[in-house]
Amino acid sequence: MSEVYEARRARLRERCAAVGTAAAVVSRPANVRYLAGAAPQGSALLVGSEEDVLVCPAPPDRRPVGSSPDPALGTHVLPGPGDPVVAAADLAAGLRIESLALEEHHLTVARYRAVRSVAPRMRPYDLGAAVEQLRVVKDEEEISCLRIGAEIADQALGELLESILVGRTERHLALELERRLIDHGAEGPAFATSVATGPHAGLRGHRPTDRRVEDGDFLSVCLGAAYRGYRCEIGRTFVIGTQPAGWQVELYDLVFAAQRAGRESLVPGVACRDVDRAARQVMGSAGYAEGLPPLTGHGVGLEIDEDPQLTPAAMGKLDACVPVTVEPGVHLPGRGGVRIDDTLVVRPEADGGPELLTITTKELLAL
Amino acid sequence: MSEVYEARRARLRERCAAVGTAAAVVSRPANVRYLAGAAPQGSALLVGSEEDVLVCPAPPDRRPVGSSPDPALGTHVLPGPGDPVVAAADLAAGLRIESLALEEHHLTVARYRAVRSVAPRMRPYDLGAAVEQLRVVKDEEEISCLRIGAEIADQALGELLESILVGRTERHLALELERRLIDHGAEGPAFATSVATGPHAGLRGHRPTDRRVEDGDFLSVCLGAAYRGYRCEIGRTFVIGTQPAGWQVELYDLVFAAQRAGRESLVPGVACRDVDRAARQVMGSAGYAEGLPPLTGHGVGLEIDEDPQLTPAAMGKLDACVPVTVEPGVHLPGRGGVRIDDTLVVRPEADGGPELLTITTKELLAL
Repeated sequence: MSEVYEARRARLRERCAAVGTAAAVVSRPANVRYLAGAAPQGSALLVGSEEDVLVCPAPPDRRPVGSSPDPALGTHVLPGPGDPVVAAADLAAGLRIESLALEEHHLTVARYRAVRSVAPRMRPYDLGAAVEQLRVVKDEEEISCLRIGAEIADQALGELLESILVGRTERHLALELERRLIDHGAEGPAFATSVATGPHAGLRGHRPTDRRVEDGDFLSVCLGAAYRGYRCEIGRTFVIGTQPAGWQVELYDLVFAAQRAGRESLVPGVACRDVDRAARQVMGSAGYAEGLPPLTGHGVGLEIDEDPQLTPAAMGKLDACVPVTVEPGVHLPGRGGVRIDDTLVVRPEADGGPELLTITTKELLAL
Repeated sequence: MSEVYEARRARLRERCAAVGTAAAVVSRPANVRYLAGAAPQGSALLVGSEEDVLVCPAPPDRRPVGSSPDPALGTHVLPGPGDPVVAAADLAAGLRIESLALEEHHLTVARYRAVRSVAPRMRPYDLGAAVEQLRVVKDEEEISCLRIGAEIADQALGELLESILVGRTERHLALELERRLIDHGAEGPAFATSVATGPHAGLRGHRPTDRRVEDGDFLSVCLGAAYRGYRCEIGRTFVIGTQPAGWQVELYDLVFAAQRAGRESLVPGVACRDVDRAARQVMGSAGYAEGLPPLTGHGVGLEIDEDPQLTPAAMGKLDACVPVTVEPGVHLPGRGGVRIDDTLVVRPEADGGPELLTITTKELLAL
């Protein structure tokens, strides 16, 4: 595995060299983990022209620092309190590095000033989202972690559907799903599990309340497993009772068609905004152009919400091996709504087209 | 309630005026909530010389924005994507405010630059931890939220102790505790519940693993409830089996004595470092000076880890109505250890001395 991280750091060094900076200090946790194999809480990674060094905070109370970093990487544990980013900049200054790239979208002004004061002669440079960009296209090892995470989420969801739902609260159902994720081997939930009943159903990111499931409700669920750091997402909407109402079937069919249009547009080279448009158009042509969510999908990986964003204004194209969600939804205030959310990997048609990771059925189930 | 928030904002305006700045943009979520009564995700609060305004991001997917802000406050919802901090600075510039205080310990460099570019003529000023300092001393309404949160945590813990523990994993016990917190009315856990068995016991902030509870183990648990935004903390250590071993009783008695010394030192006006020393000295005199945790307690409130910090180097004194944890612990590598953690409110002796919020027994229970 060590070569994987070394290759990633080499690509970052190339990017730094291309803009004329000799070294970078990476501080955003998911970026540190991507480049170093682990990101002990608060750690910073110096990617230098010579040796790369992971700087870790002093372990409070000898707490174990999580999964282990790349053994090929130099590590430096602070002897006492202090900011690893500042310590990394100090190391760089000691190596007479003249310019240093920093993640200005992650570092606070206060930490940035502290870096500048220990290394006043080093020219600062904004690393921007360089590491986030490296993270967009996944290797097969990463995709396999997402695939296992998706299987876990499918299992947790499948078991919930076999239990009695009427009368249970959103909060309890969410906790139950999270317990099942862990039962099946997840490190934890990939994000706060969302369970939305009745008038809440179909809202993106709804936070579970004490509302109980009632007969005739729409029930939307969105969950994901974290597996070896990778996070995926599945969302489904069900109807509670023996027979869905006419408006429920109609709305479900519409969102299903929109979601399918989004999924089918996932070919290497497609513009992000065209995937969004494919899904959005279906809902718009049925009269739901207003009040649609600002995005219909996004990248996933070490974070649950990564680049690319599938929005009307998104720039850029989707390459092969980019995992994204496709998750359109319609919410009718006071009545509820439908969201259907899958995680897929963009694949060339020769390889069978987009790979669906979350395989729970998308038929409208009446539970 | 509205007057409470207005009074808090008035105190912040006084602080700003004292250092010669006319307005401030507050962005740290707990600080926004403290001053505005609610902090919709990503919102920013402009505290100006004239009107105060809460700037909220465009609601994605019409998601409800949590508890409601102070109705006496002007609110401004962004029509589309955009950074509320930048929009708040833009409002201030429109009011011809000449200098603006910003939370440099919270704002990233990238957001700070965006603020500077919309308001290039406004002199920036570091607000520092001014709002955090206002938050240290609590009013009785805040303390009552902490008290209810502590009751909830006591109940959840009490129920767990009545169940069978041997053979269950740390992860499952932690999830079970979190479910019980919610059962008893918590908004959620105040922080990630820690359950540590056998060799993990006594580690501060241990993240639950798949290790199962075994006969003869120490079992340390640390949990808290979030109630109306306020977060408290309780930690206890138990022995599994019918009879604790001699070394377990000895270690427990030591940590108990250290924790009692810390609690008893909580009088208004005591130096933070003296509380730390009271607890630390007991452990040090028994030969455990090395490898002790860097702190023996901290403030709690809208965040679980607030000022003041009870450490050997802490400056400052504890006032009445400051809630703090007292949580010394000793961990013996390979064998486990003991932590005992209470949340208390500093009160004058005339009022009965420190008020213990977390009342679960601290006798050594063999379960």
